[in-house]
Amino acid sequence: MSAVRVHNFAISLDGFATGEGQAPNAPFGHAGERLHEWMFTTRFWYEMGGGTGGTAGVDNAFATAHSRGIGAEIMGAGKFGPPDWQDDPDYKGAWGPNPPFHTPVFVLTHRPRPSIEMDGGTTFHFLDAPPAEALKRAREAADGLDVRLGGGATMIRDFLVEGLVDHMHVVQVPILLGRGVRLWDGLESLEEAYDIESVSSPTGVVHLTFTAKGR
Amino acid sequence: MSAVRVHNFAISLDGFATGEGQAPNAPFGHAGERLHEWMFTTRFWYEMGGGTGGTAGVDNAFATAHSRGIGAEIMGAGKFGPPDWQDDPDYKGAWGPNPPFHTPVFVLTHRPRPSIEMDGGTTFHFLDAPPAEALKRAREAADGLDVRLGGGATMIRDFLVEGLVDHMHVVQVPILLGRGVRLWDGLESLEEAYDIESVSSPTGVVHLTFTAKGR
Repeated sequence: MSAVRVHNFAISLDGFATGEGQAPNAPFGHAGERLHEWMFTTRFWYEMGGGTGGTAGVDNAFATAHSRGIGAEIMGAGKFGPPDWQDDPDYKGAWGPNPPFHTPVFVLTHRPRPSIEMDGGTTFHFLDAPPAEALKRAREAADGLDVRLGGGATMIRDFLVEGLVDHMHVVQVPILLGRGVRLWDGLESLEEAYDIESVSSPTGVVHLTFTAKGR
Repeated sequence: MSAVRVHNFAISLDGFATGEGQAPNAPFGHAGERLHEWMFTTRFWYEMGGGTGGTAGVDNAFATAHSRGIGAEIMGAGKFGPPDWQDDPDYKGAWGPNPPFHTPVFVLTHRPRPSIEMDGGTTFHFLDAPPAEALKRAREAADGLDVRLGGGATMIRDFLVEGLVDHMHVVQVPILLGRGVRLWDGLESLEEAYDIESVSSPTGVVHLTFTAKGR
């Protein structure tokens, strides 16, 4: 069975995956880009932008796992676009004409619309479905490869609660956001289902991996 | 000026320093001893109990800093005893006849009582005072040495908010408690006042240190 994976999912020390006040020019609200600066210096990021250079240390080692062996992504509505993007029938997402997914992407929304084919192999599909059903659709599209859960925190929590996540990589950034959307709410005793490892990076972040026990 | 320090302060991955349901036989509520198991295997802990042995790795290196150069401790009422200990006029604390502090200890409570002298150099004093005033009293008693903030989370937050903490060592344990008392609430942008370092231990915990900038 293809695995369900989370990669490069950044949270603050106080557990927020996004700040308050999400808007078209502030997709992470008052967090700005601070949760993702650790990634911007990696070779993974440079090469994704078509450039060269970047660090090849532990941050990069984790970052590059993002795309390897992935056949589809599932994302929450908030990752596709700013609040109320559903009101614009022509909206094509916050990811530009050539989104960095290059696979089918299933966007969870209570207001589905027809699929949108983008450049570079990304096709956005829109689903109003609970986690297990969305996963079934994504697995079919992934054609034997793994399915990535793209976030945000709410959708990842929903999949965790249902025991659907095989591997999760969380990056803890040493800032305190104080407000926003927390990853960890409602996940008491999650450690019983996962082997948890952590490694600190010289850049200051801590990489946490969750590997489902017995899978 | 003597420094104000926090040591060996353990929290869960979701930020709880204690669980729910604190009681005489459950000082950390439903968390049990899980937040402190990392310490029980260290040489520091063995020797505190009068024994020998224990690990001498990174967990021990941090743990031993607890007592070095400390002349007084300030603790919250919840660390002195279970809920409503104030109702028992003869109560002498949850720490036995020879408490592991060996200095003056200032217990913050809205219902102060006369000081209690214990074996081993610990004297409990009881104060109904805001952080700065309690610190002034503790500094006088510390006689040039540093003051340790003993927790719980609520009193540490109160001192952090007032900018009174010079050094803080937090141990993040890879469990999710889901409920209890959070350390990080109301501390947005704390990183602006502190240099934050982290190091992961082979035992699975992550040691985080906060060093006040410019002090």
